[in-house]
Amino acid sequence: MKTIILGAGLVGRAIALDLATDKRFTVSAVDLRKEPLEELREKGLTSIWQQDLANLEGIKKVIRPYDLVINALPGAMGFPVLQTCLKESKNVVDITFSSENPLELDSLAREKEVTAIVDCGVAPGLSNILAGYASTKMDMPESLTIYVGGLPVVRNWPFEYKTVFSPADLVEEYLRPARYRENGQLVIREALSDPELIDFEGLGTLEAFNTDGLRTLLTTLPFPSMREKTLRYPGHREKMAVLKAAGFFDSEPVVVDGQEIIPRALATQLLFSRLKLRPGEEDLTVMRIVAAGKKEGRTVQLSFELIDRFDRATGIHSMARTTGYTATMAARALAEGLVKRTGIVPPELLGLDEDCLKFILHGLEERGIKIRVATNYNHA
Amino acid sequence: MKTIILGAGLVGRAIALDLATDKRFTVSAVDLRKEPLEELREKGLTSIWQQDLANLEGIKKVIRPYDLVINALPGAMGFPVLQTCLKESKNVVDITFSSENPLELDSLAREKEVTAIVDCGVAPGLSNILAGYASTKMDMPESLTIYVGGLPVVRNWPFEYKTVFSPADLVEEYLRPARYRENGQLVIREALSDPELIDFEGLGTLEAFNTDGLRTLLTTLPFPSMREKTLRYPGHREKMAVLKAAGFFDSEPVVVDGQEIIPRALATQLLFSRLKLRPGEEDLTVMRIVAAGKKEGRTVQLSFELIDRFDRATGIHSMARTTGYTATMAARALAEGLVKRTGIVPPELLGLDEDCLKFILHGLEERGIKIRVATNYNHA
Repeated sequence: MKTIILGAGLVGRAIALDLATDKRFTVSAVDLRKEPLEELREKGLTSIWQQDLANLEGIKKVIRPYDLVINALPGAMGFPVLQTCLKESKNVVDITFSSENPLELDSLAREKEVTAIVDCGVAPGLSNILAGYASTKMDMPESLTIYVGGLPVVRNWPFEYKTVFSPADLVEEYLRPARYRENGQLVIREALSDPELIDFEGLGTLEAFNTDGLRTLLTTLPFPSMREKTLRYPGHREKMAVLKAAGFFDSEPVVVDGQEIIPRALATQLLFSRLKLRPGEEDLTVMRIVAAGKKEGRTVQLSFELIDRFDRATGIHSMARTTGYTATMAARALAEGLVKRTGIVPPELLGLDEDCLKFILHGLEERGIKIRVATNYNHA
Repeated sequence: MKTIILGAGLVGRAIALDLATDKRFTVSAVDLRKEPLEELREKGLTSIWQQDLANLEGIKKVIRPYDLVINALPGAMGFPVLQTCLKESKNVVDITFSSENPLELDSLAREKEVTAIVDCGVAPGLSNILAGYASTKMDMPESLTIYVGGLPVVRNWPFEYKTVFSPADLVEEYLRPARYRENGQLVIREALSDPELIDFEGLGTLEAFNTDGLRTLLTTLPFPSMREKTLRYPGHREKMAVLKAAGFFDSEPVVVDGQEIIPRALATQLLFSRLKLRPGEEDLTVMRIVAAGKKEGRTVQLSFELIDRFDRATGIHSMARTTGYTATMAARALAEGLVKRTGIVPPELLGLDEDCLKFILHGLEERGIKIRVATNYNHA
């Protein structure tokens, strides 16, 4: 499959290197910045080039020769780039975290007879696949709770957080109202709200809080109650909430000494240099999913737990591994014909098909990403 | 005494209204903003006008007809305005918190045969007066510790702080390295460092941390160990330290989307609207000073404690009362001939003279500001 990766950041790089080892794919990568491309060249990838992808006409030209586009750009560019790819009749695996609803592009994708697997990182992404699978194990799904976070191993005051993702996406995640379902009703809560402390074996106590991570799950899966929370080291949440409350994340311009300033633009830039995981700086990914419901009159509970760590051998960050390899396994499933439908395919649909699910989980396990699954039955 | 008050903010206003009731003074006030002047007009002050005081030539003209200038401008303007007043041979009572050392202007003030009582608010100011007094009660001064802070009565997350002072001065206070003396040696510590929790009767637990409040005391009083800490509600300090660490208080411009932005200018403006005490919003001032030394072979310890509250009858904030009335009592001491020396007079020198001290403390008491003084002797 002739594949192009848009965006060669820390995640795009992990995707490119993984697919480059696979005979089913010929891989190209493109990025605005020179350095990440140079790193790929050092690893033996030759089909790479530097280009500003902000221009959609430019993207059209770039993707023309390819069968599959992997969209690994910052969230703000995600939706228009996806739309452009679909208009050009390209299959897409998309890991961007955009504010728009990708399901709106379903009829366009069907019309062009292509498949776009969207929201296909670790969460949303792998979390959706597992939630979809869990829903097949019950006659009457009742509740779904997802806790997930990427964390640096070393905790540095004040934020005790670093990431492989775009800092603009992080700020966006902390601003976007979180949508849940409670007893069948849509509930909207402020991001960063409802903090709770949760223990993880070997990791200690983490803090979970509301973010808008359910997205397509709200319309695709039948759990009447669903909740997603982000995990961080305790304290991170409040510091971000302080910046938010003090106006530093506002996107309305403020006039300072006659000059219009967008506080969020400054904040994103200041945080960028402080919150970017550096090469060799170790991180981990932690995810806990609990799905409950009824099966043949009994209460059934499925739980999934993932703790993944930085790969010292390759220097690939855990957040890039769990996000990127979910995307590459989805791309392989597509290449193998395991994804049969055209249109917008949210990852939970991959989890509904046991063959596809096993294929993906097996591939993740080969890459060292192990998910502990537990099933408990009780008489209702 | 023909007196002009430069700056009619919350403190300047309290000064103007207090002196206006005193037959020894005829009072004028000037400010850049219209609203605070209107408020003074409503209270019966007629000699007021609006003028931008950033221009020193303008200030020269403004002060010409007066015998005494009270400098109640923001800290950044403090020193050049003081210098201008001295060049124009004016007596000055100065409450500004400037980064410069006012003692550098001593020879200029002497040459012009005028007196400038500087750093003359609550702290520096009243704290210096009491420290000076304490030093007269011992043959061998040993240590001086000053804890002081203004606080809102109602604590609102995230900052749990509001002030009558310029927000630029607040940020400056949290940035300027704190100078101490320990066993005769100058020690420089980062602002906001060395937090400790201290209980105050009726107020609960407050947090004290390093700020640069000793200033002239470092060169005038003989305590070999001296320390000054600012008091806030617990938690305020860390939030300000987070903003500082995250770069929001940096004064070096940052380029964001091609535009040069000074983070501190934005932060000051965002904090301004959140940290400004509003009319009727109650506040309090708390100060604890402990001076220790030897007197005739015995250990002597003098302690001073002040807890002052918002004046509901007049609507004058406690921080404006304790700052402003220290300044007005210093002005009265000057008018009464109790301040005999010319040159730069830091307030601790007023405390060395028991008559002057009693005059000031009596005046403060008449204005409802009561200082609890305790003296303890022990055999060494």
